[in-house]
Amino acid sequence: MNTVTQVPLSALKKETSFPLDQWYVAGFSWELKEQPIARTLLNQPVVLFRTGDGVAAALEDRCCHRSVPLSCGTVEKNGVRCGYHGLLYNTHGACIEIPGQEKIPSKAKVRSYTISEKNHILWIWMPKEAGGAPTHEAPDYPHHDDPKYKFGGGVYHYDAPYQLIHDNLLDLSHLGYVHLKTIGGNARQHMTAEMQVSSDEKTVRVVRLMPGTPPPPSYKMAWPFQETCDRWQEIEFNLNHLSIWTGAIEPGTGALDDPQRGGFHLRGLHGITPETETTTHYFWSMASNRHPDMPETIATVLQQIEFTFDEDRVIIEKQYANMKRFGERATWMDIHVDVGANRARRIIAKLIGEQNQPAA
Amino acid sequence: MNTVTQVPLSALKKETSFPLDQWYVAGFSWELKEQPIARTLLNQPVVLFRTGDGVAAALEDRCCHRSVPLSCGTVEKNGVRCGYHGLLYNTHGACIEIPGQEKIPSKAKVRSYTISEKNHILWIWMPKEAGGAPTHEAPDYPHHDDPKYKFGGGVYHYDAPYQLIHDNLLDLSHLGYVHLKTIGGNARQHMTAEMQVSSDEKTVRVVRLMPGTPPPPSYKMAWPFQETCDRWQEIEFNLNHLSIWTGAIEPGTGALDDPQRGGFHLRGLHGITPETETTTHYFWSMASNRHPDMPETIATVLQQIEFTFDEDRVIIEKQYANMKRFGERATWMDIHVDVGANRARRIIAKLIGEQNQPAA
Amino acid sequence: MNTVTQVPLSALKKETSFPLDQWYVAGFSWELKEQPIARTLLNQPVVLFRTGDGVAAALEDRCCHRSVPLSCGTVEKNGVRCGYHGLLYNTHGACIEIPGQEKIPSKAKVRSYTISEKNHILWIWMPKEAGGAPTHEAPDYPHHDDPKYKFGGGVYHYDAPYQLIHDNLLDLSHLGYVHLKTIGGNARQHMTAEMQVSSDEKTVRVVRLMPGTPPPPSYKMAWPFQETCDRWQEIEFNLNHLSIWTGAIEPGTGALDDPQRGGFHLRGLHGITPETETTTHYFWSMASNRHPDMPETIATVLQQIEFTFDEDRVIIEKQYANMKRFGERATWMDIHVDVGANRARRIIAKLIGEQNQPAA
Repeated sequence: MNTVTQVPLSALKKETSFPLDQWYVAGFSWELKEQPIARTLLNQPVVLFRTGDGVAAALEDRCCHRSVPLSCGTVEKNGVRCGYHGLLYNTHGACIEIPGQEKIPSKAKVRSYTISEKNHILWIWMPKEAGGAPTHEAPDYPHHDDPKYKFGGGVYHYDAPYQLIHDNLLDLSHLGYVHLKTIGGNARQHMTAEMQVSSDEKTVRVVRLMPGTPPPPSYKMAWPFQETCDRWQEIEFNLNHLSIWTGAIEPGTGALDDPQRGGFHLRGLHGITPETETTTHYFWSMASNRHPDMPETIATVLQQIEFTFDEDRVIIEKQYANMKRFGERATWMDIHVDVGANRARRIIAKLIGEQNQPAA
Repeated sequence: MNTVTQVPLSALKKETSFPLDQWYVAGFSWELKEQPIARTLLNQPVVLFRTGDGVAAALEDRCCHRSVPLSCGTVEKNGVRCGYHGLLYNTHGACIEIPGQEKIPSKAKVRSYTISEKNHILWIWMPKEAGGAPTHEAPDYPHHDDPKYKFGGGVYHYDAPYQLIHDNLLDLSHLGYVHLKTIGGNARQHMTAEMQVSSDEKTVRVVRLMPGTPPPPSYKMAWPFQETCDRWQEIEFNLNHLSIWTGAIEPGTGALDDPQRGGFHLRGLHGITPETETTTHYFWSMASNRHPDMPETIATVLQQIEFTFDEDRVIIEKQYANMKRFGERATWMDIHVDVGANRARRIIAKLIGEQNQPAA
Repeated sequence: MNTVTQVPLSALKKETSFPLDQWYVAGFSWELKEQPIARTLLNQPVVLFRTGDGVAAALEDRCCHRSVPLSCGTVEKNGVRCGYHGLLYNTHGACIEIPGQEKIPSKAKVRSYTISEKNHILWIWMPKEAGGAPTHEAPDYPHHDDPKYKFGGGVYHYDAPYQLIHDNLLDLSHLGYVHLKTIGGNARQHMTAEMQVSSDEKTVRVVRLMPGTPPPPSYKMAWPFQETCDRWQEIEFNLNHLSIWTGAIEPGTGALDDPQRGGFHLRGLHGITPETETTTHYFWSMASNRHPDMPETIATVLQQIEFTFDEDRVIIEKQYANMKRFGERATWMDIHVDVGANRARRIIAKLIGEQNQPAA
């Protein structure tokens, strides 16, 4: 538990620092309006757009003529047109018009990416080999479409590597120190609550139950808790996103580990998509139920969540900046709360290791 | 026409990435007032100043004592004085006073550059060998002194290599996509108009005639055109500047390719001077005639031109930023409009190649 | 005197570019309030804090758990607590609490630094070997506690290497060019006044006496000088700080080199502490006496000093930026005023040379 780990700063240099042949969150459906969006994903500059026909698409973000970003162009019925000399591309990356020139060379094309739009989420397939097709379906995230919940979300940009955000989310014991003003609660209680960790080859699950704990400020704004409540935190790590189900019931109104439990629910989606080795897109949403007596709380809940996530961003960016200041002098010492995060790191390290192995 | 060219990103690294033994635009006469000006030209930090005696001069921008920029100093009757310990330099770079010290060492000097001030333009000779003298006269640009025209101008700084600006100016077919609000006109007509390209060892000439085209917004503000006009674009590329003569006559009022033609004239000077391999100074002026019924249009014309040039800057800087994002993955595919620009690139490549060759 | 020196840009790269086993100014006592302070000193990221018990302390600025800066944490009675997971450190760098975990591993610690708090100054010992103890006492600076004087001070950050600031302070002949509006006076008189320079292995002393000189604006605001005054400048360079005693008496009212002289006194402390090889912390204070008829001048004096030091910062940062622009082309030519500064550079070069020598 108290091993000293060399921080893998050197490992951040390689192109293959991310698990590939995976779906990643590229954005939310509501982001795609009239203008194309430029977004670098896993080091690859991508333009996201929705055609006039309503199809969400993703291409390499450059015109094959003179490298102007297609994201500076305009969306048309069936593609995107470059804003410099008017070359038009369809959703597969093929140039289908060069104004003033009859012949379109076969080389006139750019890479395309597979987009799967489900549950208001734009999933993008990031293949090992350029142009590789998905080998499985994009994840389901039904809570966005569950009538019991209302949800909202947003996008953060982090100046920090993606795995530092995994670490943060897989151990919510920091709530008592970082998020005192919103979802924090009693620091000691968080640190001493028993943590159950389970995992397989692709997922890690961390559960912490905290009966008889004082409800934190955000909970009290959204639900009529009295002096104490019984809280749960259920974190599920997947390679491309984390699902975090937190909440609380009034003391003694049910089993705290029963998935059918009532009370106040916060269902968080955390799409952690590397931009580069050292920067990350953080796509989040929060779905919440409402107490019959307090039906209009979702806006307040989202404000609180946004404030909370900003606190995390500040500390993680400072953490990473400090890792860079100290360089190789910054070793890490594990403590009891790191079990889940370390398992997630091992899953990713194994996948990347296999990826980098020369084919037999 | 549809060749795929590797973008010469690697070529941007070398000191000798610019044709030397050439005049370049260093500034406009009206810029030299009481304060010296700091400007890096072809990687060389230069201070420009006009002495109290009225002489325009250029020196290496550092005091030989402790490297403080001379551009932080003050101009005197016959030189520039360092603002730290008061060393005074004449226009040839010789230190002519060290306050408090009688002897002036022979080493007390900095490099000087030859300035030729003509037609309100400050031309600077950038020699192959330090201190090399001009081998020919600086260019004439008579339109600044032609009573038929009024002119104004300005200076832009580009975060992009100079040749991307040449590319832009040697192919005005982008007007229909980039400059719709000002000088654009009909995109298709621009793209399909016949382009005549001619060149020799030092210049490229691109002419495009567009009879019967709708006058763009800027033209209508400056000249009482009706529904259509006959437009011309005559671009002349020189190593150190481009002259672009655009304009229009009312339909059927003369031969469109007659240099004596009447109508509305825009005579643009584009002094494209590399700051470094990846940044550029863009000195421009626009001289225009006025219709007898609309004599006060020059201010409006200049506003429109400034707006237009800003649109170009935005797209070229985005183009270059994208080239850096993609690195070696950003290949270029030529289309029909690139003929003139490619010839200019070949002229420059040949000169730089000869320059880099070891002397026999 | 007119030697040409290669600017030691290359020397700026090495870890051991600073004299070690020395006290440096880390801050002023009044800076340590409720919040810890992050400050990089000689390339070492340090957190400064004052415990609830009133002890000033300095630790390596990282938690040994996950590298979050301790300067983002909170100060407690006997230490500083990390703001991420609550690890608590005492003033010696030992972790004394890991919330939720009973065993504290022996590895749970970070480096500590010795702080000596004297005369409102926080001196930090920067050892050659990690954890090395001071071999001598921190300097005395009694003028902060002299009832004859009032003082104030501040902290500047310089984008320039520390020795450029030494150069500036060891030769006040620049006052006539850089500080005309405040403490400048007549430029020629400054440059031609005789300069007495003396030195030993650790200190350099530069004295300049200027009888019968016009009092500069700042002096007249603080003391009822008439048309002329007799000025002195006494600069004492030490490795970790400079003491500069400037002032003036009314003409003929005493010996200008008598340490008991009356008149107007400005006693400046200049704690020049490298942040990195290319950036510097500049801790300054100014203690001044007051004329019986003008007792409330200290605020005005400090305003003027602050303005003056800002002028220095601007020119030194421009000097350094210019050294970087010119790189190895920026040679230095000494003039008569450089004697003191060059001796200080030799003292430092000798110490660093000895430091870098392999042990026998």
